Amino acid sequence: MEYRRLGNSGMKVSEISLGGWVTFGASVNDQQMVRDIVVKAYESGINFFDQADVYARGKSEEMMGAVLREFPRHTLVVSSKVFWPMSDHINDRGLSRKHVLESIDGSLKRLGTDYLDIYFAHRYDPETPMEEIVMAFDHVVRSGRAMYWGTSEWTAAQIAEAVTFARANGLHAPVTEQPQYSMLYRDRVEKEILPATTRHGVGLVVWSPLAMGMLTGKYDEGMPEGSRLSDNEGFAKSFLTEANRERVKALKPIADDLGLTRSQLALAWALRQPGVSSVITGATKVHQVEDNVKAAGVKLSEDVISRIDQILAS
Amino acid sequence: MEYRRLGNSGMKVSEISLGGWVTFGASVNDQQMVRDIVVKAYESGINFFDQADVYARGKSEEMMGAVLREFPRHTLVVSSKVFWPMSDHINDRGLSRKHVLESIDGSLKRLGTDYLDIYFAHRYDPETPMEEIVMAFDHVVRSGRAMYWGTSEWTAAQIAEAVTFARANGLHAPVTEQPQYSMLYRDRVEKEILPATTRHGVGLVVWSPLAMGMLTGKYDEGMPEGSRLSDNEGFAKSFLTEANRERVKALKPIADDLGLTRSQLALAWALRQPGVSSVITGATKVHQVEDNVKAAGVKLSEDVISRIDQILAS
Amino acid sequence: MEYRRLGNSGMKVSEISLGGWVTFGASVNDQQMVRDIVVKAYESGINFFDQADVYARGKSEEMMGAVLREFPRHTLVVSSKVFWPMSDHINDRGLSRKHVLESIDGSLKRLGTDYLDIYFAHRYDPETPMEEIVMAFDHVVRSGRAMYWGTSEWTAAQIAEAVTFARANGLHAPVTEQPQYSMLYRDRVEKEILPATTRHGVGLVVWSPLAMGMLTGKYDEGMPEGSRLSDNEGFAKSFLTEANRERVKALKPIADDLGLTRSQLALAWALRQPGVSSVITGATKVHQVEDNVKAAGVKLSEDVISRIDQILAS
Amino acid sequence: MEYRRLGNSGMKVSEISLGGWVTFGASVNDQQMVRDIVVKAYESGINFFDQADVYARGKSEEMMGAVLREFPRHTLVVSSKVFWPMSDHINDRGLSRKHVLESIDGSLKRLGTDYLDIYFAHRYDPETPMEEIVMAFDHVVRSGRAMYWGTSEWTAAQIAEAVTFARANGLHAPVTEQPQYSMLYRDRVEKEILPATTRHGVGLVVWSPLAMGMLTGKYDEGMPEGSRLSDNEGFAKSFLTEANRERVKALKPIADDLGLTRSQLALAWALRQPGVSSVITGATKVHQVEDNVKAAGVKLSEDVISRIDQILAS
Repeated sequence: MEYRRLGNSGMKVSEISLGGWVTFGASVNDQQMVRDIVVKAYESGINFFDQADVYARGKSEEMMGAVLREFPRHTLVVSSKVFWPMSDHINDRGLSRKHVLESIDGSLKRLGTDYLDIYFAHRYDPETPMEEIVMAFDHVVRSGRAMYWGTSEWTAAQIAEAVTFARANGLHAPVTEQPQYSMLYRDRVEKEILPATTRHGVGLVVWSPLAMGMLTGKYDEGMPEGSRLSDNEGFAKSFLTEANRERVKALKPIADDLGLTRSQLALAWALRQPGVSSVITGATKVHQVEDNVKAAGVKLSEDVISRIDQILAS
Repeated sequence: MEYRRLGNSGMKVSEISLGGWVTFGASVNDQQMVRDIVVKAYESGINFFDQADVYARGKSEEMMGAVLREFPRHTLVVSSKVFWPMSDHINDRGLSRKHVLESIDGSLKRLGTDYLDIYFAHRYDPETPMEEIVMAFDHVVRSGRAMYWGTSEWTAAQIAEAVTFARANGLHAPVTEQPQYSMLYRDRVEKEILPATTRHGVGLVVWSPLAMGMLTGKYDEGMPEGSRLSDNEGFAKSFLTEANRERVKALKPIADDLGLTRSQLALAWALRQPGVSSVITGATKVHQVEDNVKAAGVKLSEDVISRIDQILAS
Repeated sequence: MEYRRLGNSGMKVSEISLGGWVTFGASVNDQQMVRDIVVKAYESGINFFDQADVYARGKSEEMMGAVLREFPRHTLVVSSKVFWPMSDHINDRGLSRKHVLESIDGSLKRLGTDYLDIYFAHRYDPETPMEEIVMAFDHVVRSGRAMYWGTSEWTAAQIAEAVTFARANGLHAPVTEQPQYSMLYRDRVEKEILPATTRHGVGLVVWSPLAMGMLTGKYDEGMPEGSRLSDNEGFAKSFLTEANRERVKALKPIADDLGLTRSQLALAWALRQPGVSSVITGATKVHQVEDNVKAAGVKLSEDVISRIDQILAS
Repeated sequence: MEYRRLGNSGMKVSEISLGGWVTFGASVNDQQMVRDIVVKAYESGINFFDQADVYARGKSEEMMGAVLREFPRHTLVVSSKVFWPMSDHINDRGLSRKHVLESIDGSLKRLGTDYLDIYFAHRYDPETPMEEIVMAFDHVVRSGRAMYWGTSEWTAAQIAEAVTFARANGLHAPVTEQPQYSMLYRDRVEKEILPATTRHGVGLVVWSPLAMGMLTGKYDEGMPEGSRLSDNEGFAKSFLTEANRERVKALKPIADDLGLTRSQLALAWALRQPGVSSVITGATKVHQVEDNVKAAGVKLSEDVISRIDQILAS
C-alpha cells in the first residue's frame, strides 16, 4: 500500500481507504461479514476508515467500530462526520456549536474510541455563522476529541474562507475536503475545488470514485434488479445514462491493456491528481477490497490519461 | 436614475454606468464626441464612470478624464484598473506592490484627478502573493489614492480569501467585483460568484451586459462589416452562434410587450439581481446612452423572468 | 550539585543529568543495575533524567521509570522525546499532531508518570507544517501532559521560527534545545545554535558531552573489543581519529593539574557556556555517576580554557 | 535578459544586476564613465541597480542616481542600504528607527527619486531590538519610501525571526537577503542561508559573485599592482590563495568548452540556484557589463555542475 500526506498535514493516509457508506448496517448487516471486509482492508495496508454518524443512523459506526477496536489505535486513521439529521429533534442536525460537540461524543461512543483522527463537517450549514463553525471544530481539536477536522462538499469559496479565517485567528484550519469525484463526475473538483484546496494545503479524500459502481462495468448491460444503484434514485438518474454506459465500455480495452480491472483503472485515475490524498471505496464483499487495493501505487502514463480524457469527453 | 450601494459599502453608484472599454480612444477618437457622450451620461444621472489604464493604452482615461474634470469631483464615482501590461517592461504588469502603486499614479494623472473612487485588480496575479496584493490595495486606500478597491474576474475562492484575510488583519477589504455577466454569459456569476460576493458584502458591477452588443439585436441577421464585434475575434466566436441569434430574436416580443428595447430588457434583467450594483455600458453615440439609462429602475415580473429563462435555456 | 534555570524558564535542572540513551535496555539490561545507577544519581543531586520513546524501543523508559517512581515526583525533571519510528506503521513516526499526542501517552505509561517535565521533538520533521508542530506541542503542555517542550537537533532558523511563531500567537514556545556538544564537536553549537538560543531564552541540554566516551581517555590506545563505541559505526568514524586521540591525550596534564579526570574536565568545559543548562551523561556503572557529578560547579579559568582551545584547534 | 521574481514577491529583477560598490565614486570617478556603464547596463536589460548610503560615502548613490534619472522610474528597481556609519555622530549608524528613517531620506535625495524599490538593512544590529528594526522597515514601506525591504548578511535565524514576527503581526516582512556568494565562498549560503530563505520566500541577491574579481582569471598569475583587490586587504587574504588560483585556472577549460568566459561561468553557476534572484556585478568598464550580461539565461548541465564541484572541493 502507498500512503500520502493528508494535504499539508503531517498525518498520512492510505491511497485506498474504506468507507461505511451505504454498505455497513445497510446492504451488509452481518457483523461477521463486516469483520471479514474490515480485517482484509487492514491487512492489505488500508489505514483510513471513513464513517459518518448518519450512515445507517449510527449502525455503520457501530459495526465498523467493533472491528477497529481489535487493532492498535495508533495504526488507524478513523473519521466521522456531522451535519445531517440524526433524529427529528430540531438541534439534532446542522453545524451549530451545540450539535457539533454533542454529536462527536455520540460518534466516539458508537465507534468505541477516545478520539477521531478526522471530524468532517458533512455539508456547509448556511444557518450557522462561519465563525461559529470554525470555532466549534477548533474546539473539537483542542479538546482532544479529534486530531484534525475537514469539510465535505463545501464550495471553494467556503473552504478558502474557513482556512483563511482560522489561520488569521490562530485556530485549527481544516486539512481535508471530501468531495464526490470520479471519471463520470469530474468538472466541479477539477475546475473549482482543486485550485483552492491546493493553494490552501487541503487534501482531498474523494467519495464515490467508482460512480456508485458504474465504473466497475457491472451496469454495462443496464441495471440488474436489486443492485445498490437501484436504491439510489438520484444517482441512478445522473450516472446510468446511455452515454455513460458507452464510456464505461470504451474504458475496458484500456484497462485490459494495463492488466487492470476497470475499478482499478478508475481509482488510479482519481489518484493521478497529487491534490487527492485518498479514494474512499465501499465493499460488500471481501474480494472487492482485494481488487481495489491493487490500484494503490499504479501510475498512469500521459498517453493513457489522454486516451481516457477523450473517452470521457465523448 | 436609480442608485444602489456598492455592495455593503456606503457609496452609491448609478444602476447604469458608463465605461471607456473598446470605445474611447478606439472606435471613438473624437474628443467632442466623447464629451457629448459623457455629458449626456452625467446629465442623465449616471455617476459611475469606469476606466482602466489599459483601455486604449491610457488614451481612454485621458479622453474621459478631460470631460469629467468639468463636473464637481464629489458628484462622480471614477474607477480605474491595474494588471495588464502597459509596456514591455517586466514590472509594468501584474499586481506587485511596485506596479500597483506606480500604476495608480499614472491613472490619476491621465484622468486628472487626485483620487479614484474604486481601484480594481483587473485580474488575479498568481505570481504575487495574496498578502502582497491585499496589502498593496490597502495602501492605495490608506494613502488616499482611492476610496475603495475591487477585483475583476477573480474566482469566488480568491474573493473569499482576500476579504477574509483583509478583515482579519484590519486591512481594507475589496468592496466590489467586476465580472462579465449577461443573458448570454450567466452561469459563472450565478453559480459561483454571487453566492460568495453576497456573503461577503461585495457588490458586482458587471461588464458586457449586452454581450458585446449581441443583445441589442443588431446581429440578428449576422455580423455586419466594421462592427465592434468583428474586432474581437474571441468574443465573436463565443457569442455569435446560430443558437444565440435565435435566443436574441425570441426576446424581441417580450421587450416589445414591456415597451422596452432589447438592450433595456437585457440591462434590467442583469439588474434584477440584488447582488449587482451596476451594469457598465459602453457607447459610441449619444442616443445609446439615452436608450440605456431608461433601463434603470425597471422591475421585471417573475413571469417575465421565467419566460426569459426558458428562452435562454433553449 | 549545582542547578541552573532551563533557559529563561522558571524550572531548574542539575548541571549534570542522567540519560538512558544506548545504556538502559541496551548495554545495561539488569534492572537492579539500572536501579543502582539511578538511585546513585538521585542521591548525588541529579534531578534531570532524560529519556526518549525510541531508546531501546521503550525499554529504557520502562527500566528508568520503574526506579523514578520511588522518588517524590516533584523532585524530578523527567523528559522524553518523539520523532523516530517506533514501528513500521506509517503514522508511528514524525511530528504530526496525531503521532505527537499518541506518542506521549505511550511514554507516560512506560515511565509510569502522569506528566513529563519536558517533551522533546527529537528532530525537525519537514513533512509536517511548523504550525502543526508548534500547536501540537502547545497542546501537550495545555493538556497537562508535559510542563514544557523542547527541540533536539533543530537548526537555529527552525528554533527562531518556532519561538517567534509561538510567542506571536500566544502558544507555549520551546524552552530548551538538545544538541550534540562536546570538545570534539563544538562548532555547530557555538557558531550557529548558541547565538539563537541565547537570544530566545532557550537553554541547551547537551548530549554526548564525552563524545561517545572518547573524552574519558579510554580509547587513548584505540578501540577495545566490545566497547560502546564499536556498536556505533557512524560515531566511531567521526570521533576515533588519530588527531582526536592526540587531542584527548594532550588534555590529560590539564585535567591532572586541576585534580580532575578528563571526563570531569570535558563536562565542566561544556558547562562553561552560560547558555548550556545541563550536560546529559550516560552510565553503565555506578562509579561513572560518582565521577561525573563532581564536574558540577567546577569553574575553569580563562587560562585553562585558552589552553584547551589550543589543543582542540591543533 | 532573463528576469526572476524577487523571492515570493511580485516584483521581478534581472538575473544580472549592477551595483555601485567599490566602483562608482571610488575607482570610477568620472561621471561620463559612470553614465556609459549604467546606460549600457540599462540597454542590456539590467533593471536592478544596487546602492548603499555608505558606498563612497554617498557619492556612489549620487553618480548612479544622476544617470538613472534619465530612465522612466517604473522601469527600474533601485535599492539602497542602511547600517554602516555615515559620520562620527553617534546615531548616524545602526538600525535604530531614528537612523533608518533619517537615512533613507538622505539616500532618496542623493539618488534623486521619490522612493526606493528595496531598502536593505546592511547588517544586523544587535544594539536595536528586532521589534524596532522590523517596525522601522515596515514604516519605510507603509510611508511609501520603499516598495519592499530586505536584509544583508543576516543569519538564517535572524531572517526566520524577522519574517515570522512580521507575518504574525501584520507587518511587511523582508522579501530579500543580500549575502556574499560565489564559487569561492559558498558554504554559508548553501548550508545555512538557502534552507531558511527558501522556506520563507526570501530571494537572494548575491554580492561578490566573482569573488572580488578572482573568478575572472585576472589574478591567475598573482596580484598585479593597482588592482581593486589590493585595496581590500581582508578580501585579498581570504581569496588570493595558491589553492584558489589553481581552482580558478582549472575552471578555464570548462568555460572554454561552453563558449563562456570564466566570469560568465561564475555568474551562471550562482544563478543555477533557484533561490538566487540576481547576481550583483560591478563594472569599471563598459565591456565588463557587456561580458556579464551574457551569463543571463545560461543553463549549466548537471555534468558541468558536478565537474565544477570537484574542482572547488579540491
